[in-house]
Amino acid sequence: MSLTVTELWSAMIAEARQYGKNEPVLASFYHASILNHASFANALSFHIAAKLDCDSVPAMLIRDVFNEAFENDKGIVEAAALDICAHFERDPACDHYGMPFLYFKGFQAIQAYRIAHWLWQQGRVSLALFLQNRIASVFDVDIHPAAVIGHGIMIDHATGLVIGETSVVGNNVSMLHSVTLGGCGSGPGPRHPRISDGVLVSAGAKLLGPILVGEGAKIAAGSVVLSDVAAHSTVAGVPAKQVGALSAELPALNMDQYISEDI
Amino acid sequence: MSLTVTELWSAMIAEARQYGKNEPVLASFYHASILNHASFANALSFHIAAKLDCDSVPAMLIRDVFNEAFENDKGIVEAAALDICAHFERDPACDHYGMPFLYFKGFQAIQAYRIAHWLWQQGRVSLALFLQNRIASVFDVDIHPAAVIGHGIMIDHATGLVIGETSVVGNNVSMLHSVTLGGCGSGPGPRHPRISDGVLVSAGAKLLGPILVGEGAKIAAGSVVLSDVAAHSTVAGVPAKQVGALSAELPALNMDQYISEDI
Amino acid sequence: MSLTVTELWSAMIAEARQYGKNEPVLASFYHASILNHASFANALSFHIAAKLDCDSVPAMLIRDVFNEAFENDKGIVEAAALDICAHFERDPACDHYGMPFLYFKGFQAIQAYRIAHWLWQQGRVSLALFLQNRIASVFDVDIHPAAVIGHGIMIDHATGLVIGETSVVGNNVSMLHSVTLGGCGSGPGPRHPRISDGVLVSAGAKLLGPILVGEGAKIAAGSVVLSDVAAHSTVAGVPAKQVGALSAELPALNMDQYISEDI
Amino acid sequence: MSLTVTELWSAMIAEARQYGKNEPVLASFYHASILNHASFANALSFHIAAKLDCDSVPAMLIRDVFNEAFENDKGIVEAAALDICAHFERDPACDHYGMPFLYFKGFQAIQAYRIAHWLWQQGRVSLALFLQNRIASVFDVDIHPAAVIGHGIMIDHATGLVIGETSVVGNNVSMLHSVTLGGCGSGPGPRHPRISDGVLVSAGAKLLGPILVGEGAKIAAGSVVLSDVAAHSTVAGVPAKQVGALSAELPALNMDQYISEDI
Amino acid sequence: MSLTVTELWSAMIAEARQYGKNEPVLASFYHASILNHASFANALSFHIAAKLDCDSVPAMLIRDVFNEAFENDKGIVEAAALDICAHFERDPACDHYGMPFLYFKGFQAIQAYRIAHWLWQQGRVSLALFLQNRIASVFDVDIHPAAVIGHGIMIDHATGLVIGETSVVGNNVSMLHSVTLGGCGSGPGPRHPRISDGVLVSAGAKLLGPILVGEGAKIAAGSVVLSDVAAHSTVAGVPAKQVGALSAELPALNMDQYISEDI
Amino acid sequence: MSLTVTELWSAMIAEARQYGKNEPVLASFYHASILNHASFANALSFHIAAKLDCDSVPAMLIRDVFNEAFENDKGIVEAAALDICAHFERDPACDHYGMPFLYFKGFQAIQAYRIAHWLWQQGRVSLALFLQNRIASVFDVDIHPAAVIGHGIMIDHATGLVIGETSVVGNNVSMLHSVTLGGCGSGPGPRHPRISDGVLVSAGAKLLGPILVGEGAKIAAGSVVLSDVAAHSTVAGVPAKQVGALSAELPALNMDQYISEDI
Repeated sequence: MSLTVTELWSAMIAEARQYGKNEPVLASFYHASILNHASFANALSFHIAAKLDCDSVPAMLIRDVFNEAFENDKGIVEAAALDICAHFERDPACDHYGMPFLYFKGFQAIQAYRIAHWLWQQGRVSLALFLQNRIASVFDVDIHPAAVIGHGIMIDHATGLVIGETSVVGNNVSMLHSVTLGGCGSGPGPRHPRISDGVLVSAGAKLLGPILVGEGAKIAAGSVVLSDVAAHSTVAGVPAKQVGALSAELPALNMDQYISEDI
Repeated sequence: MSLTVTELWSAMIAEARQYGKNEPVLASFYHASILNHASFANALSFHIAAKLDCDSVPAMLIRDVFNEAFENDKGIVEAAALDICAHFERDPACDHYGMPFLYFKGFQAIQAYRIAHWLWQQGRVSLALFLQNRIASVFDVDIHPAAVIGHGIMIDHATGLVIGETSVVGNNVSMLHSVTLGGCGSGPGPRHPRISDGVLVSAGAKLLGPILVGEGAKIAAGSVVLSDVAAHSTVAGVPAKQVGALSAELPALNMDQYISEDI
Repeated sequence: MSLTVTELWSAMIAEARQYGKNEPVLASFYHASILNHASFANALSFHIAAKLDCDSVPAMLIRDVFNEAFENDKGIVEAAALDICAHFERDPACDHYGMPFLYFKGFQAIQAYRIAHWLWQQGRVSLALFLQNRIASVFDVDIHPAAVIGHGIMIDHATGLVIGETSVVGNNVSMLHSVTLGGCGSGPGPRHPRISDGVLVSAGAKLLGPILVGEGAKIAAGSVVLSDVAAHSTVAGVPAKQVGALSAELPALNMDQYISEDI
Repeated sequence: MSLTVTELWSAMIAEARQYGKNEPVLASFYHASILNHASFANALSFHIAAKLDCDSVPAMLIRDVFNEAFENDKGIVEAAALDICAHFERDPACDHYGMPFLYFKGFQAIQAYRIAHWLWQQGRVSLALFLQNRIASVFDVDIHPAAVIGHGIMIDHATGLVIGETSVVGNNVSMLHSVTLGGCGSGPGPRHPRISDGVLVSAGAKLLGPILVGEGAKIAAGSVVLSDVAAHSTVAGVPAKQVGALSAELPALNMDQYISEDI
Repeated sequence: MSLTVTELWSAMIAEARQYGKNEPVLASFYHASILNHASFANALSFHIAAKLDCDSVPAMLIRDVFNEAFENDKGIVEAAALDICAHFERDPACDHYGMPFLYFKGFQAIQAYRIAHWLWQQGRVSLALFLQNRIASVFDVDIHPAAVIGHGIMIDHATGLVIGETSVVGNNVSMLHSVTLGGCGSGPGPRHPRISDGVLVSAGAKLLGPILVGEGAKIAAGSVVLSDVAAHSTVAGVPAKQVGALSAELPALNMDQYISEDI
Repeated sequence: MSLTVTELWSAMIAEARQYGKNEPVLASFYHASILNHASFANALSFHIAAKLDCDSVPAMLIRDVFNEAFENDKGIVEAAALDICAHFERDPACDHYGMPFLYFKGFQAIQAYRIAHWLWQQGRVSLALFLQNRIASVFDVDIHPAAVIGHGIMIDHATGLVIGETSVVGNNVSMLHSVTLGGCGSGPGPRHPRISDGVLVSAGAKLLGPILVGEGAKIAAGSVVLSDVAAHSTVAGVPAKQVGALSAELPALNMDQYISEDI
């Protein structure tokens, strides 16, 4: 049910025309961020690079890196579009497509991470680490550039999110602020969690070590998860234990943080 | 026992004179932020607008929006004064009135939210959302402009605070950093908590869904609260359960985060 | 096993030469931050002051305060070197000495705190509070300048860390993001925790009140600790209880966040 | 034939609406600079203060000084309106009232000088000198705050204009870039020129010493004037000598820089 | 003898590699300004847009306008290359091609003017005027966007240059700082000078009114020119008169400001 | 009659204390620029570096270059002190020592040039050229780093000053704005003027080619000088001719721009 990049871009253009007309203080902001661009990719590199601007590496230079990555890996722009649709579909407070693009730190951080990850894959380690630091400073989100993250990702509110070096996150995953995918041990293999498709990780949950969280699982807010979580199950508590029955739905999509209290 | 706006302003002027004299590095900072202004309202619009300054909407323009709101809703400035008194009375580390005004991200974020809320009420949705994003970027506090918040509010340390769209917070409430008033469900009615007067929400607590937290209740640090909390009771744990006896005091005022461990 | 300041500085110089050669975008960043300086102390005051730059107190002026502190208290620079070694030894994702120096918000925040603490000791209270606010704004770390903190400190990821006014933290302590050393009560004595040497405080743990955490103790992620913790023990849960057997090792050094789930 | 302040403001509002609609890149610039303000005075203090913004004294603070001056001396705003009309009437390249206000360094420099002059009159010498330096840095125009300048002033192109401490300039004077009103001697009396009403001083002319330039005189481009100039006469050359016949017209108003070559 | 754009770009790349290696402070400056770009046009839009950066219209947005102009008018980039060659060939102090590109205000101002001129031709009058103001602020050069200027232009030192609305400047013209092409009269036709190919206008010369300066003429420093100048002649003085014999050479190319004193 | 560096510094400290007390808006500016420093040299490197701050090379890094130059060539700081005394003694509008230091573009440009010249002498050509460009952008003064300039220099108003590559300027020279020391020819030897001690060059004068201006000569405003000028003589006109009698005084010291009109 997600839009194609072209459909999304048309919708964002129409929204920006409307919003800019209603609020002259922001007319040029809507123009510069959206209306002025020939494509979604152009607008994306412009807007996120502007956020990451700093003295050491100015926005224009960061944008050139974004454009280079976009040309070499078409999936980055498509993933961004799917992320926007994820916010639009899952977040009741998000009623137009421009919102995550323009305003949501979680969306913006993920897009910047994707460039850091592409740099890491190219062996440009120091620029990847530099970007990781800028993302942590600007968006309060700390994602190691070596982490692997899918598409259709929604990071709501985002402040305090930490995703460690060997983490793997599937598609259509929803995470809230203050979630940690943290490491245990220091051996050569994975030290961080592997999150399957459709998982919902509620606010403040800490998942530690190379555990596997199965497809469609739900991690309750404030949980501390130290072992594998079965697909389509819900876990809660410190440390987390399974609560409630299995379900065929994908909790990431309906964002229902509710859990039974009978635990 | 709170000061009037006029009394508060006199106290802040006297303090700033003293501090500026002792620390020449900050003399002009005290002058520009406090001493240069004819009223508390003038200083408030100056100082908070300076914090929110960005390329897209410069500080002077933001300040004009603040002044417009102050003129149309006198309660905003009075609430700010009560918030300062709340910090002064409840926080042992706060020993002069200028501290929250000049330095505390929680106080500053709430004042900026009040303008975003006023804009939201006027139907200026896009500028309200823009401000919400600026507040989240600058203060690491994410408050939806539609949320309703009273006066005498103290948000200590503040980083990571999230208050969702349909939340209602009463007067004389104290909250610490990393507290979440989060949503459950997606229907047309309220999806977020309703916090009554005098409640204390300790660090890292997550309150989820349209629950009612009664007057003078205490939510222990790190709790995950999924159901209503009785007035003057204390809840703790993941998920939170009632602990300790009822009390007639308002825990928000003495900031006692202590809870019995017998839970 | 830590390096001396001189050994560390030589290692950082060698690394920066290598990294700058590989990534021309950052060549001048490596030069300005490291290679251009005659000593570790010079580079440290340059780099951290640049991070704290603001209109009210520009970077050059902040740097002069740093240099003044370094001259009056030689221990500050030595502690910084030990902090870098702590990251290098304990964090598998940190594979060169320049990483914490250049990129890690936790390391940078602690170094800036040390200057605020020195100012506080000199009675320059208002500049100390100003710096505390800058640290909270720039690094999302809120440390009261009166708190006492040792050396060999590692603050991983760092966002949301809060350390209150009367806290005492020993040497070789590791803490993760979202950790709180919070206060209870308002009397004249200590209101915050005392953390002994070699303690590991995992992500999101809240330690409240004037409790004593003994040497080599481990506080599990997400715990809420309200009473003393015995040396070399592990506590977990909300509220935290002792789990697992005593150990002679220092958990801060191996960063093993794992805890038994049998609690 | 000049407009009143109210008429001018209405005309500027109408223009800005039109220009903002045609050029979305500048829509918010027109809004922030003109449309957002309730009066010409508000817009003037906003726009010129924004130009003078610097780390040591931010724009908002400068604007407060402007507003204080405007309230104490109503003539400052009226003079600004007359200056705009002067540009509109005399400069063929200026076809709307917003042009000098938004774009012309000469107009902007004169308005900022008026505030420096007001400060000088109040005995606030150091802030007046600070502003003089900002004006020289931002607009490349060096006017001593003690100089006395009338209204209806047009400074075309402006770069390199110098007006010394004891200069007096009447009303409806036009000067071009690189004009100098310079000093000779160092006694207690006037050391600089006195320019009467309606004088035109063409590009690059240097007028030196306490000479009197009579009403309606014309100083040819590149002249060096060392002695009094009769009213309604034209002088040219190095040093300048009278050329051409007397005229009843005011050369400042038609900006005719032409002079007979028979000199 | 000028280089093609491709040859010039190769030479600039080779120089930048050498200079960056010798001066690490500027290594990233050379990289960001030159080495990082795939073509001369890319580097040009990056570097000049960075100079024009301001709050109202950030550099990235200005760069997009540059790129749009470059695509629609191929002559703009070619003219820029010829301007660089003009500096290299005519200025003894310019010993590498990167110098005018990186450092010379005159070269940079002309390139920015070309974009303003292109906007003016497209009917985007307000953005053209905005750019004119930015050029005047940043480079101290005031060129009306309606003026018509050829290629192979060298503007040495540049401060104070003024070129009015109906001016026409041919190819291979050299002008120094403080030169004015000023207007006389206010009718519908041309009011400013027409400068033919190969003319040299020395420092501080003022040319006023719709006069014709013939091919290969030389205008001596400090002259005030009020009437036509014959091709290959030299004029000097206030007002300017012909001095010396006719010459077949192009004085713009050898930059010989010398004139006989027998005038 | 000039002060020693120590005497000057004491006088500046006393002035800054007084001015800061009278104008709280600037209290921290006086503190940061003067009072905070242990020596004149420290204050000088701080204040001029702050003026030259830019994204590519931040102020702190420029300051380190200044300090390096100061340590290697003690004469630079002494020359700066003599320049301040020159302004104080010769400019009636300069009534305290802090004025040129804090506010005068000419003084500031010369001090920055001295560092560029020192870099040029060390063979650090590209950083010298970079600084030349920054000086031209910030102060509107274009001095080639290879030029040789003495001490006791006063550059009044300064905008548009140009000093070419092979120029030599002696001690105790006064020059006004828009003065050009320009080149003729392109051979290997000197192409620019040699100005002896005690010369006064009035506003807008152009001196072209490798001419010698003798000790104590006076060049009238607007002159164009193409041949040698005898010591203690006055020249004026376009081209300049000797006017008035020889004098034993040094015109640079009394700044008397007056010349007889009998030329």
